[in-house]
Amino acid sequence: MDKDKILKVLNETLALGRKDIPLGEVADYIPELGKADKNALGIALAGKSGNVYTAGDAGSRFTIQSISKVISLCVALESCGYDAVFDRVGMEPSGEAFNSIVELDLVSGKPYNPMINSGALAIVDLLLGKYTFTELMEISRKLCRDDGIRLDERVCRSEMENCSRNRAICWLLKSKGIIENDVDDILKLYTAMCSLSVTACSLASLGLILANDGVDAITGERLLSSSTVRVVKTIMLTCGMYDGSGQFAVEVGLPTKSGVGGGLLSIVDKVMGIGIYGPSLDKKGNCIAGGAMLRRLSSEFGLHIFTP
Amino acid sequence: MDKDKILKVLNETLALGRKDIPLGEVADYIPELGKADKNALGIALAGKSGNVYTAGDAGSRFTIQSISKVISLCVALESCGYDAVFDRVGMEPSGEAFNSIVELDLVSGKPYNPMINSGALAIVDLLLGKYTFTELMEISRKLCRDDGIRLDERVCRSEMENCSRNRAICWLLKSKGIIENDVDDILKLYTAMCSLSVTACSLASLGLILANDGVDAITGERLLSSSTVRVVKTIMLTCGMYDGSGQFAVEVGLPTKSGVGGGLLSIVDKVMGIGIYGPSLDKKGNCIAGGAMLRRLSSEFGLHIFTP
Amino acid sequence: MDKDKILKVLNETLALGRKDIPLGEVADYIPELGKADKNALGIALAGKSGNVYTAGDAGSRFTIQSISKVISLCVALESCGYDAVFDRVGMEPSGEAFNSIVELDLVSGKPYNPMINSGALAIVDLLLGKYTFTELMEISRKLCRDDGIRLDERVCRSEMENCSRNRAICWLLKSKGIIENDVDDILKLYTAMCSLSVTACSLASLGLILANDGVDAITGERLLSSSTVRVVKTIMLTCGMYDGSGQFAVEVGLPTKSGVGGGLLSIVDKVMGIGIYGPSLDKKGNCIAGGAMLRRLSSEFGLHIFTP
Amino acid sequence: MDKDKILKVLNETLALGRKDIPLGEVADYIPELGKADKNALGIALAGKSGNVYTAGDAGSRFTIQSISKVISLCVALESCGYDAVFDRVGMEPSGEAFNSIVELDLVSGKPYNPMINSGALAIVDLLLGKYTFTELMEISRKLCRDDGIRLDERVCRSEMENCSRNRAICWLLKSKGIIENDVDDILKLYTAMCSLSVTACSLASLGLILANDGVDAITGERLLSSSTVRVVKTIMLTCGMYDGSGQFAVEVGLPTKSGVGGGLLSIVDKVMGIGIYGPSLDKKGNCIAGGAMLRRLSSEFGLHIFTP
Repeated sequence: MDKDKILKVLNETLALGRKDIPLGEVADYIPELGKADKNALGIALAGKSGNVYTAGDAGSRFTIQSISKVISLCVALESCGYDAVFDRVGMEPSGEAFNSIVELDLVSGKPYNPMINSGALAIVDLLLGKYTFTELMEISRKLCRDDGIRLDERVCRSEMENCSRNRAICWLLKSKGIIENDVDDILKLYTAMCSLSVTACSLASLGLILANDGVDAITGERLLSSSTVRVVKTIMLTCGMYDGSGQFAVEVGLPTKSGVGGGLLSIVDKVMGIGIYGPSLDKKGNCIAGGAMLRRLSSEFGLHIFTP
Repeated sequence: MDKDKILKVLNETLALGRKDIPLGEVADYIPELGKADKNALGIALAGKSGNVYTAGDAGSRFTIQSISKVISLCVALESCGYDAVFDRVGMEPSGEAFNSIVELDLVSGKPYNPMINSGALAIVDLLLGKYTFTELMEISRKLCRDDGIRLDERVCRSEMENCSRNRAICWLLKSKGIIENDVDDILKLYTAMCSLSVTACSLASLGLILANDGVDAITGERLLSSSTVRVVKTIMLTCGMYDGSGQFAVEVGLPTKSGVGGGLLSIVDKVMGIGIYGPSLDKKGNCIAGGAMLRRLSSEFGLHIFTP
Repeated sequence: MDKDKILKVLNETLALGRKDIPLGEVADYIPELGKADKNALGIALAGKSGNVYTAGDAGSRFTIQSISKVISLCVALESCGYDAVFDRVGMEPSGEAFNSIVELDLVSGKPYNPMINSGALAIVDLLLGKYTFTELMEISRKLCRDDGIRLDERVCRSEMENCSRNRAICWLLKSKGIIENDVDDILKLYTAMCSLSVTACSLASLGLILANDGVDAITGERLLSSSTVRVVKTIMLTCGMYDGSGQFAVEVGLPTKSGVGGGLLSIVDKVMGIGIYGPSLDKKGNCIAGGAMLRRLSSEFGLHIFTP
Repeated sequence: MDKDKILKVLNETLALGRKDIPLGEVADYIPELGKADKNALGIALAGKSGNVYTAGDAGSRFTIQSISKVISLCVALESCGYDAVFDRVGMEPSGEAFNSIVELDLVSGKPYNPMINSGALAIVDLLLGKYTFTELMEISRKLCRDDGIRLDERVCRSEMENCSRNRAICWLLKSKGIIENDVDDILKLYTAMCSLSVTACSLASLGLILANDGVDAITGERLLSSSTVRVVKTIMLTCGMYDGSGQFAVEVGLPTKSGVGGGLLSIVDKVMGIGIYGPSLDKKGNCIAGGAMLRRLSSEFGLHIFTP
């Protein structure tokens, strides 16, 4: 498709997504997140040619939140290796909401997967000591091709003031010997990573790296190993959308990760990365307009992994 | 690859798989299943050209068991439609063993997905009245390109005598209004479907239909709609290997369904179907040698869905 | 107190209880139970002198429902012994509603206690073969000093038509090897025992036997052993009021068992039995007016087990 | 019984209890507790006459641990009232081990009862601000008639270094809005209360206060209200022995609370208090020799609450 055609499709898709905005709600369990503009909506596509196509509020900054779990997992796999990561965190979908404690306490001895909070906190514990926050932010900028990524200090502070449940999870992990570092240090790094300010464009670029086997399509530089990228995409597919992951895989069929800041990172393997921003969330905590937009794009352009 | 090369690879793979046989156990919770030859092992590949390549005991008959859940789901989607099916059964991985009752009673109002027993029983309830067992066997023969498929009456009888837990699940489904038909009728049909005798070749052919968008590659006849096939493959990928589904997706990356009879049905999308028979099972109830063989084939030939 | 004083107190208590009737609901999950007169209310006291004092609808017949669990437990302890009973059923309060399956499946290998359905069904399995229903009805008549006890066939039939959940529990018990007899036979006997028609007077007399160490206060005949009675009263105290047992023990402090037919059997140890009928139930399934009446009687007359 | 007779009985009981010591284990999850002498065993009875009868190591000091939950509950009921206490903590037995998180997260919105850690921590939160630790120690000395009660600083420090699970529970309570104070302050006060050094004699005296309606039998001073004492004894009876509470109530029938330091506080209502020290614990965390001793005393002297 030529550029005009792509932009036309993107704008139509945006218009379609907009209709679902009123059906969702902005996350308000953290005060600072509650200030987001519910009607904001943007989408960006980053193709292997190096072009990035956008519509709507694709340049607006928002906090990456749970999508940082993807970056942390990438870095942990690269630096600690597959075995070290999956000795402490499983890779099974949990069928549970993002912040469940039950399955950790009752059923298994370790967090189900790296996309739920308990698993992500255990991953951050692995990174602590190996990396400073500044280094991880630098890596994030590179993976997102976005030097504008900053720490949103207000969101970070607001989240640190409202992280009792994550703190409970950390101490439970500690009591089971799953994490080693100081709980406060883990929470600070985890929360800082969640508070990185990105745009739909940043996420699209990150998606492109993952779609392109870990190689920056523009510079040709390999940023992530092939095996890391394969693992991460699979886990995004099976576990990326909380307790709606299975349905999303059936209906959309793209590895995708959501964040309560309103972001969506989605991957059309070998083809492109998609970034979306829309802070109105459905009941499972996923960007509601973004879900509709991805469903539409997937069906119209045959993007589902099992498209014939 | 030419035929000789393929057969050489298959036989090497078989030799590799054989090493894991002693690490598993034949299912013995149903007496008749316990009689299987633990050392049996066979594999079949069915390619779009129409050729079927085999090694080992690829012609041995065994009961299809849980792999029949794939056939039932296909038929239910074709005859009742997506909405009717997923109104009564979810599509989320459960993180639970195949016969768990907990999640049904506690967390959700309906079975998590069609690949666990509660979900499969609810699907069979949908089929009852629409199809006789004979008709469903006929459909199975067609989907597997195998007229030799029969009801293994001894296994069927043995399972009906040892189905207290499935009966409990049915009555729980009944008490929640999820199933409508007579429980005994549901159990009989479900158990008969599980007792269909297939071979690794039958499963490879079934896999090929699913790999080929629902079209019989040889006759060109469309047996299943494109959307049914897409849904089924996705659910096999996220939920097909019980509580080992997530890890299998990461490591092998092929939609696969196992049965406690020792069968494995695996799909290399757009390319081929793979059928495996090996009754020595790992702790999660999946063919242990088959897992090793699929891991090897996937890594050696780049079959993972996210292979670059 | 003389007779007039006692009757005055009973009538005042009844008036107080009546105020709570509108706050409850008649059980309607079984159609025939739903036909009860919500405003019916009666109370009976049976003292060691042999006198029975009544107020309100103390002579109305209703089905005994879960209070039959007390009779079954008594008979099982007498005929099979303490060890046989508690090998298959625990004696821990479950903190769960009366018909929960979770704890059975997940946490423990056997039902928590004989006062929840799973435990009571396991007890009935013990009685089957040893006793016919007619014999158990005869025992019930003797323990209640009430020859008018009959099988309420309409309620029994209605319950048998709506017992899917109990059937699920039975099959789960069967799959775990906890029960031995035919499930249908167990359910029929269990349901028939629940469908015995009693009055508040019958229950007061039963309570008196238990208060009087198992001896019929009028004839002097020992009907139950001292140890059976001690065990039963303790389990009534800790487990008799479903998931409201703990609060009831704190506030009322009398061994008490409720039934969804509206009955309450309560014991003032060494002193008297209390029977209550009032089919308007609170959310936990206990007679709502009866709870208020027992709270009042306990506090006014110092009946709590830990009254100084 | 005269004094010699009582001492003879106590020594025989001690000899019987000693036989069970090898079947248990000293708690070792906290290093300092692991240093206890496994073979230590002592018992003390405090009667209303003012006499205290002892046998074995009745004067040895050990930390009160969970038995402090009884003191905290008494003080909270006296100072905050029944409603304030039970608005935040339930009174249902949980059927769970002492440190379970599951029931808190999944089933109910508040801790099941004040005898499990989550409930006790919520009670301590109520006391913080109203009382300093020194004041609470002073109250404990008075209730135990033991001026020798001190803070065991080594145990306290060791526990503070190993309280990750309690810390997790606190933060979960915080995230649900059940506790208000600083988590560290709560843990410090809770742990200090658990680290009070008592003897079997101290516990016997505390038991006597509770047996005697809250009145010091020797001075005649009322230390606790009648209603507080009634509530506490009932909760000890239904919830005092962790997930062995139901069985203990059936077999012994005395309100009893255990601590992992090896203490047992038991009450023969209206008659006497019993204190036991024996650090060899059964699998549920209760003094194993003490359980045998109480069973023996209860059956031989008819101490069960439902003794005829």
